[in-house]
Amino acid sequence: MNTHTKEWQELADIKAELAERDWFMGTSGNLSIREPKSPFFYITASGKDKRKQSDSDFLLVDLKGKPVEDTNLRPSAETLLHTDIYRKTNANCVLHVHTVENNVISELYGDEGQVSFRNHEIIKATGRWDEDSELRIPIIYNHADIPLLSDKFKPHVEGDSGAVLIRNHGITVWGKSGLEAKRILEVCEFLFQYQLLLNQQKAFAGSIR
Amino acid sequence: MNTHTKEWQELADIKAELAERDWFMGTSGNLSIREPKSPFFYITASGKDKRKQSDSDFLLVDLKGKPVEDTNLRPSAETLLHTDIYRKTNANCVLHVHTVENNVISELYGDEGQVSFRNHEIIKATGRWDEDSELRIPIIYNHADIPLLSDKFKPHVEGDSGAVLIRNHGITVWGKSGLEAKRILEVCEFLFQYQLLLNQQKAFAGSIR
Amino acid sequence: MNTHTKEWQELADIKAELAERDWFMGTSGNLSIREPKSPFFYITASGKDKRKQSDSDFLLVDLKGKPVEDTNLRPSAETLLHTDIYRKTNANCVLHVHTVENNVISELYGDEGQVSFRNHEIIKATGRWDEDSELRIPIIYNHADIPLLSDKFKPHVEGDSGAVLIRNHGITVWGKSGLEAKRILEVCEFLFQYQLLLNQQKAFAGSIR
Amino acid sequence: MNTHTKEWQELADIKAELAERDWFMGTSGNLSIREPKSPFFYITASGKDKRKQSDSDFLLVDLKGKPVEDTNLRPSAETLLHTDIYRKTNANCVLHVHTVENNVISELYGDEGQVSFRNHEIIKATGRWDEDSELRIPIIYNHADIPLLSDKFKPHVEGDSGAVLIRNHGITVWGKSGLEAKRILEVCEFLFQYQLLLNQQKAFAGSIR
Repeated sequence: MNTHTKEWQELADIKAELAERDWFMGTSGNLSIREPKSPFFYITASGKDKRKQSDSDFLLVDLKGKPVEDTNLRPSAETLLHTDIYRKTNANCVLHVHTVENNVISELYGDEGQVSFRNHEIIKATGRWDEDSELRIPIIYNHADIPLLSDKFKPHVEGDSGAVLIRNHGITVWGKSGLEAKRILEVCEFLFQYQLLLNQQKAFAGSIR
Repeated sequence: MNTHTKEWQELADIKAELAERDWFMGTSGNLSIREPKSPFFYITASGKDKRKQSDSDFLLVDLKGKPVEDTNLRPSAETLLHTDIYRKTNANCVLHVHTVENNVISELYGDEGQVSFRNHEIIKATGRWDEDSELRIPIIYNHADIPLLSDKFKPHVEGDSGAVLIRNHGITVWGKSGLEAKRILEVCEFLFQYQLLLNQQKAFAGSIR
Repeated sequence: MNTHTKEWQELADIKAELAERDWFMGTSGNLSIREPKSPFFYITASGKDKRKQSDSDFLLVDLKGKPVEDTNLRPSAETLLHTDIYRKTNANCVLHVHTVENNVISELYGDEGQVSFRNHEIIKATGRWDEDSELRIPIIYNHADIPLLSDKFKPHVEGDSGAVLIRNHGITVWGKSGLEAKRILEVCEFLFQYQLLLNQQKAFAGSIR
Repeated sequence: MNTHTKEWQELADIKAELAERDWFMGTSGNLSIREPKSPFFYITASGKDKRKQSDSDFLLVDLKGKPVEDTNLRPSAETLLHTDIYRKTNANCVLHVHTVENNVISELYGDEGQVSFRNHEIIKATGRWDEDSELRIPIIYNHADIPLLSDKFKPHVEGDSGAVLIRNHGITVWGKSGLEAKRILEVCEFLFQYQLLLNQQKAFAGSIR
């Protein structure tokens, strides 16, 4: 089977771009894209240095997360969260990344179970067009047991695009295309950076003016 | 019509440079440049990934923001702010970008309606050469209705170069050339970063010394 | 002797990647990799600009840190710390870098003699897989006398992979491969950035909510 | 006269590297290198976008700052500070750059007339090798009148390598070679970033532990 389809290349491009931002520190993160008109998707192989590009970066797996082809590559240990999304929605791309900012946000707002944003032009890029639209991102506990984590994750997988934070374990976003998933990821990271910077400044407000 | 003029290329270079700084998070931002000796200007097409370069990145529109050529590209939803500037001034380039810092500044100083800077050598790069020159940047409310936003924006478009912040909606700068517009943008972003860092430090001043 | 072996190239790739992140400010830092089936290792030559690549970036030395070949290159002044690790463990790669964040962490937590992290998914990348695994990094005083520094450093060299902070003198990490050493380095730097950002936010917690 | 000597190329390389770090925001900054065995030096031409490379980036001037060749390029407005250094010392390279951090440090410590650092391994890269060596950087007022600024600057030009901060007007460093000047610049910027981050953390120390 030819693994270098249009989708394979799209995922490789997304991986290269996120790697350039250093969003795969410590070989963290995993990415996948659905092969159209098939019950299969490409997912990052385990243990690779994601700043490098190679023909064995991704492997094709089914909706149970099992390799479709004979390969010595292992799918990412967190493949189960990707299958949760592909089984339940029409999403075609899933991105999971650790950034310092998304980890700090997940810790700061973790006890509240969510973080939400309002009155930001950039929220429109997630498809919410009203002036007072809210972007709400659930935060779940990071169970080391992946099937248990999956059970807590699934209830938050509600539409063809979305985002969930796992406490001190990065963000998982999905969308109907690679471009949409990446756009949602960028909006979330932008807002996380914004919130952390604003928190700092507001604390000093008394002394600023 | 040949769309790859000198101006097209200049705008493509500016787009590539701003993309490298990651100033188009979530496909935000829009850029334009005037085609000389014509009532038309190039503007970024809607919905594109601005980190990529392609022949369909820009389209030519008239001073009403309508495409001049037969195209399936749509001009940016905020084209109206660009036409406001080209109709009222001799500016030849308009840049609108979201950065975390310009959004936080717009929120912190939004109630005052402006943010201003003094005693910075870098202010000279905006054409103000006196030792105590002031750079004042108005901040307007982010109306979701673009014609209403345009009505509030226009009174601040006063010369052939300038800058306006829209609250939680980035900065719009313009200049007589692409180089001048980019220089003004860089001066503003430099000063925003400076102010946020200085605010933090001043708040601690008591404990620093 | 041909110095461009697979290991030479692996070290050159690591150097290029760390240089891209600007982790060699002021020509600081030094890197080494063991030549397999030999008592020798490659180490960065002294006084080079590590953002540049050249055939004289590394030289081969023995476990006393003496050049094996006739060369006018001098091994890094801190080669002794590398030999400490290669003599005592089966590590094959050692990385020493200064970052602003690792220096600040070493100063803030220096009096406690260590900094430690828990409840972070990314800790798994260091080979600790339990939900409540702890990553503990010792911090030692920066003696200007290198043999004395080596005496204080050696007791902390306990396994085939590890990390030690030297106060205001960067971090030294090691692993069984270049990839493992780099992964441990990235995990440490990620956690340092996280801790500094979280410290700031927690201090404001009263005013944030 | 052939302007593409070894020194011209060395300065071009330094410019490219500093541009990559975005240390020339708003077309700020100016760089120069001495042409050996001649009373002339190359200096950046005024008004250029320093992120771009071209044959007209530098021009050759004498120790009065006057162009040696027939050219329509103008030397940087601050050429006088470069001639101050070349007349008084054996330095062969001068770098002047604005960073957000060096501007904030110059403002925070400006009233004290200096900022100084101790107990940092990285200070050794400036040629100070004792365990308790101090790196002291004077901070002078930013007079808009360049000859007056030069009068206040000259007393601080004391050796063949050094650094001076001008308040809200960046840093000027010099060294016996391009590599030395760049190394001193990097050490200063590293220490400025360190100090600002440490100030923030120390202020929170009570709540951190």
